[in-house]
Amino acid sequence: MRVEIWSDIACPWCYVGKARFEKALAAFPHRDRVEVVHRSFELDPGRAKDDVEPVLAMLTAKYGMSRAQAEAGEDELGGQAAAEGLPYLTRGRDHGSTFDMHRLLHFAKERGRQEALLDRLYRANFAEERSVFGDDERLVELAVAAGLDADGARAVLADPAAYADEVRADEREAAQLGARGVPFFVLDRAYGVSGAQPAEVFTRALARAWGERTPVPVAGGDGGEVCGPDGCAVPQR
Amino acid sequence: MRVEIWSDIACPWCYVGKARFEKALAAFPHRDRVEVVHRSFELDPGRAKDDVEPVLAMLTAKYGMSRAQAEAGEDELGGQAAAEGLPYLTRGRDHGSTFDMHRLLHFAKERGRQEALLDRLYRANFAEERSVFGDDERLVELAVAAGLDADGARAVLADPAAYADEVRADEREAAQLGARGVPFFVLDRAYGVSGAQPAEVFTRALARAWGERTPVPVAGGDGGEVCGPDGCAVPQR
Repeated sequence: MRVEIWSDIACPWCYVGKARFEKALAAFPHRDRVEVVHRSFELDPGRAKDDVEPVLAMLTAKYGMSRAQAEAGEDELGGQAAAEGLPYLTRGRDHGSTFDMHRLLHFAKERGRQEALLDRLYRANFAEERSVFGDDERLVELAVAAGLDADGARAVLADPAAYADEVRADEREAAQLGARGVPFFVLDRAYGVSGAQPAEVFTRALARAWGERTPVPVAGGDGGEVCGPDGCAVPQR
Repeated sequence: MRVEIWSDIACPWCYVGKARFEKALAAFPHRDRVEVVHRSFELDPGRAKDDVEPVLAMLTAKYGMSRAQAEAGEDELGGQAAAEGLPYLTRGRDHGSTFDMHRLLHFAKERGRQEALLDRLYRANFAEERSVFGDDERLVELAVAAGLDADGARAVLADPAAYADEVRADEREAAQLGARGVPFFVLDRAYGVSGAQPAEVFTRALARAWGERTPVPVAGGDGGEVCGPDGCAVPQR
């Protein structure tokens, strides 16, 4: 079974939701046969690379919150994160473009390091003082910590076209699948789970998707030439 | 869209079918958004690692063919391969266990080198004099040619448990999906194509699977906490 998770590094509910999903997955009897793939989604796709500002300032400017509302929101998110055992800086975080991080995550995916890099990006963004925005060398350090080579990561960051199509393809696909926000979980392309749901919801979704695995209808007829337990069907002329 | 292909390195129709599928994929307008994953299937799962014999001897012993029938079958397969531009040794190939090669393909998958290794294994098995069976260093050479590191490949081959579960999981999944032989192609888990079908069949299957991509039903309600274009839904207390 495959679970695809659309998320953004700048999305607090994605950070929290990933932990809740992983709690459910860890207890799932068939966890060894579940493949998890992370897909790109930008909450703020129009933001320029060099446009970095404090989260609290962004919340008041972009969503018209009062400072007190923005701080209360961050406190609430910090509490939800803490309940999952996740560190969360409720003050002093930055907001910016995550496009380069998504490009780097696709590079990491090709090298089997996507999960490791995503966890490091989340941790750096939500729990560490040093900003992940506007600082390519910070991203290179995180890539190296995730097992990638520094030169490779640097080359990806230096070339804005590298893996850009992959990021945009993920984003188009999210829209096609019906995602209006993230995190958005898709199980075997059969159905989705929207949001940082409680672990029990993921547990039920995993069990349901697992139970519904059935033979796929075979298109194009049975006339194809196959090899099987009785050997290879070879027309004798 | 994702296409999963179950196949065995010892399966001539898999070798030919891969080329036919790739011809269709190369002409598919959305080819850049198709992810191909190779899955394990053993035609001869009970064969011991050190049990290697010539293909023609296996065909007469295991399937009760006459020598002339076995040779005619190989000639026919060689002709089908040639029609796809693939070299094929119709005499002198060996047959043996492919389990270690499948384990190595899972190792390669983690490093983004699965496709490269599979192509090299096919080519070595079907078109090169030196046997791929009973010779770990031969497999290490092919792994290195596919961009893997020799020590890593050697370690996988030396540990019979490495990636063994992944191989068996693929094989169980093939059975669940209804595969009775290989190659077996599964498009977005929506339906399958069985056998080395003509490229036109794959072309139609790709177009159909692409056209049928629809929003997935969302389970667990809409109550999940998401971040979206209007910000993150945060309950204010």
